[in-house]
Amino acid sequence: MKDVAREAGVALGTVSKVVNGIPVGKSYQRRVEDAIEKLGYHVNRQARALRSSKSNIVEVVLPDLYNPFFSRLADCLCRELARRSRQMMLFLTKCNYALEQDYLLMSEQQMVSGIICLTYNPTLRVPRGIPTVSIDRNLGPGITCVASDNYGGGSLAAQKLMENGCTRLAFLRTGSPLPNETDKRRDGFVRACADAGIPFHCECVNDGTPYSVFEDFLRAHLHDGRPDFDGLFCATDQLAHQIHNTLSRMGLRVPEDVQIIGYDGAQLFGDQELCCSTIVQPIEEMARVCVDLVLQDAPDKIPYSIHLPVCYAWGGTTRR
Amino acid sequence: MKDVAREAGVALGTVSKVVNGIPVGKSYQRRVEDAIEKLGYHVNRQARALRSSKSNIVEVVLPDLYNPFFSRLADCLCRELARRSRQMMLFLTKCNYALEQDYLLMSEQQMVSGIICLTYNPTLRVPRGIPTVSIDRNLGPGITCVASDNYGGGSLAAQKLMENGCTRLAFLRTGSPLPNETDKRRDGFVRACADAGIPFHCECVNDGTPYSVFEDFLRAHLHDGRPDFDGLFCATDQLAHQIHNTLSRMGLRVPEDVQIIGYDGAQLFGDQELCCSTIVQPIEEMARVCVDLVLQDAPDKIPYSIHLPVCYAWGGTTRR
Repeated sequence: MKDVAREAGVALGTVSKVVNGIPVGKSYQRRVEDAIEKLGYHVNRQARALRSSKSNIVEVVLPDLYNPFFSRLADCLCRELARRSRQMMLFLTKCNYALEQDYLLMSEQQMVSGIICLTYNPTLRVPRGIPTVSIDRNLGPGITCVASDNYGGGSLAAQKLMENGCTRLAFLRTGSPLPNETDKRRDGFVRACADAGIPFHCECVNDGTPYSVFEDFLRAHLHDGRPDFDGLFCATDQLAHQIHNTLSRMGLRVPEDVQIIGYDGAQLFGDQELCCSTIVQPIEEMARVCVDLVLQDAPDKIPYSIHLPVCYAWGGTTRR
Repeated sequence: MKDVAREAGVALGTVSKVVNGIPVGKSYQRRVEDAIEKLGYHVNRQARALRSSKSNIVEVVLPDLYNPFFSRLADCLCRELARRSRQMMLFLTKCNYALEQDYLLMSEQQMVSGIICLTYNPTLRVPRGIPTVSIDRNLGPGITCVASDNYGGGSLAAQKLMENGCTRLAFLRTGSPLPNETDKRRDGFVRACADAGIPFHCECVNDGTPYSVFEDFLRAHLHDGRPDFDGLFCATDQLAHQIHNTLSRMGLRVPEDVQIIGYDGAQLFGDQELCCSTIVQPIEEMARVCVDLVLQDAPDKIPYSIHLPVCYAWGGTTRR
């Protein structure tokens, strides 16, 4: 910067102002810019981060990019951060709790300016002093949880199955027994079934690769070759898609024999195509809110949890 | 570090060795580790990066995460980098050339230790002095291009269509008119058709949202309601999937009326399911090779281009 000031014939403070985007007289601005170009000066962002103890980097922690919901979310978060001149450092955990913890604690050393995470670790410690936003899970006081309206979505799924003529419903999920925000999908579903006085049951199966766990689940509910439910709400589109395939392989027809509604609404291939009838999360809006919150300067003013509205979309696995 | 040395009762050099993973006597190791834990010392990575003019960050530039090939590639790159204690800074460009250029030049300021990019910018300038690996495109001398065996893959697609009984073939691609590695998919296809003396034609359509461009393409090839080809090789799985949907909407059956082979082999939902019969790129292996190359210390020794082997996989859009 001293060299730039000498070359431009201005004070060091003037160079500092230009570099930091603070207005100076037009001729000064021009002289400094010319000198910067001539000398090939550029801001050393690492040095700047060291000085301010903060970088432009936001850490994003997700399970994987296989599930279209996660890849769509990562896509939207990356764009939202770029719009605010922030960079996204991405970590994928495959739900490995130790890795999740490492990545979060590492962020202290990277001096990231914020963390956006979707994690299932039951004993997660979040680094202090770094603005953190959690998706779909409450991580404790001071950390905002951003989620779609899981309760309303579960209730909507039950209503849509009933509107489509289903009279015996079931709810299915996979994954950890840890309480989290997505349990509300079941709660809303149960409530709507109970209110309507319609028979239902809820089940949790292990993650299904190979698919045999789904076949076992379905066989346990078959009587004379027909399942004991005609409407199924699955906690994710991925699960709905896997169950749909399993039913087809077993010779059952969707939506004629069983109607299925999933949850997520991530579009395959980025076009309008859904893999099933589904409760659509507002993924772009969730990403925008997460970035807004994590870059907010007054973390004491941020709300504890935010639930964004969902809607129903037909995707071929219900009558309409 | 001085505080740690004092607390542990060892020399400063011993602390430095422990912090940098250089072996010291067991009791020294223990004493230093205890002191580090007691004092809450941690390595300031920004300061370290500043000193070495290098960070542990590798920049990855991709078009988007909608296409399952890109999201799978990002997933594999992220894991490979994590395995080497590197962090992935991800940029998505949506094929915006100005953005791609900005992201690459920004990397100089971030002091990233390497760049892995998949870009279509015809006039891309790559920052000097940063190890760079390009996927599927030659960016000039000194920058290794990693690709699957596009030529062999195109040839294999034609062979498989012929083995399945097709007698009139077509090749279809979308995207930029810029020459790139993936053109070899067409070249290999053309060669195999010519060698077999089988009629074929090649076409390029614009990216297809809305799908009407695909309908226009297909209608132009219909005679008395039947297409003038019975085997179609699409340059990507995404395109194969879109064409499949368009054919179905037009009342044509796949694979009975037209057999389709795509290229990529990215699995939907991370399980074994393919969206079409396809030429499978070894995505995990490509990610591993990219990371190997970008972290290699002697860039003058790295090869100019690497082509990894592909294979055929049945996914429902061909007879077998």
